[in-house]
Amino acid sequence: MPAPWIDISRPVQPGMAVWPGDPATRFERVQDLAKGDACTVTRLSMCVHAATHLDAPSHFLPDGKDMTAMPIETGIGRARVIGIENAKAVTAAELAGHGVRKGERLLFQTANSQRLAAPGPFAEDFVSIAEDAARYLAEKRVRLIGVDYLSVGGFHDDGAATHRILLEAGIWLLEGLDLSGLSPGPVELVCLPLRLVGTEGAPARAVARQLARRDRRA
Amino acid sequence: MPAPWIDISRPVQPGMAVWPGDPATRFERVQDLAKGDACTVTRLSMCVHAATHLDAPSHFLPDGKDMTAMPIETGIGRARVIGIENAKAVTAAELAGHGVRKGERLLFQTANSQRLAAPGPFAEDFVSIAEDAARYLAEKRVRLIGVDYLSVGGFHDDGAATHRILLEAGIWLLEGLDLSGLSPGPVELVCLPLRLVGTEGAPARAVARQLARRDRRA
Repeated sequence: MPAPWIDISRPVQPGMAVWPGDPATRFERVQDLAKGDACTVTRLSMCVHAATHLDAPSHFLPDGKDMTAMPIETGIGRARVIGIENAKAVTAAELAGHGVRKGERLLFQTANSQRLAAPGPFAEDFVSIAEDAARYLAEKRVRLIGVDYLSVGGFHDDGAATHRILLEAGIWLLEGLDLSGLSPGPVELVCLPLRLVGTEGAPARAVARQLARRDRRA
Repeated sequence: MPAPWIDISRPVQPGMAVWPGDPATRFERVQDLAKGDACTVTRLSMCVHAATHLDAPSHFLPDGKDMTAMPIETGIGRARVIGIENAKAVTAAELAGHGVRKGERLLFQTANSQRLAAPGPFAEDFVSIAEDAARYLAEKRVRLIGVDYLSVGGFHDDGAATHRILLEAGIWLLEGLDLSGLSPGPVELVCLPLRLVGTEGAPARAVARQLARRDRRA
């Protein structure tokens, strides 16, 4: 029996933390059973970089590709959860000990997953990917990187640089995960963004299930 | 080698057809690299019942559950594409010949998949599920039903009745698929709606790959 699927997406709802300055999340009932309408219908309004989402190259690169360029297979298959010990940043020095290989899907489980998984205000001091780690991952040519807060780059440091380095390397960025339910090691990942046409990112749902270390299924 | 994943979602973009009266789809660039901003950021506004999406019981049932009640496994696993011959409706008479079983995920490939898969104005005369077929599927206690246009129920006939019968039976409704790339028979389905909290539906991405008839993988 495979392990059960675990939801690694963050809930989408009004009031949830978004990147400072980004549009708020809104649900508007345009029809409502409780008011005598035939059914209930909601309009959703949100930033495409809120909660769990993908960044496309065009988020930071003037001639970058949009979400339609993401292959379905990028988000479906074997991935690896790496437990990050450094409480401030994902660094090249720490990654060097993990044998990162070309084409891998890597999910970085940092202190964010315990500290920031629950709803709360935006946290400026989340653990992010340092510029040197971004260069390391770009050189290794990994396929996808998942992080457990809203951005691969920091709020104070390396925000734009980290994005540009990773996106220029053709790496897809899965941000806003809740990795608190997984253990370091191999997992089967399923991550599907909405099929938005022409945008620089898209909200996504992501689930994963733990694999035995020798499991070749995914 | 498994068959390749096929995208069975419809593209989400401004101008796409929505159910008459539902809110239009909008992308608004709130930051733009082309205007000198540090990055490009888009606000998405859409009806949760536009393009490919799930309906929760609360869409038509006053005390019905919302999207958070949908188990992850509902959208992931073996499904069956049934080719519907009737050019007007999915009927109980036609379904009776297909040996529908409890717990199945069924995707109805109707004339819509050829006629209405391309973008175009809303089509009132799409093939929908007749009330007698809804009762048949409710009795069989299938798990999920997927249809290749925006609603399980018709625009002129059976719209509310078909929804209520299926939702009262605990069947999850996956609407707005493009099934033109699949053949009748078993498939592996992956369908993930956004993790919206409290809403009566949610936009989703869905992909599938064809299985050999005896394939037990999914």
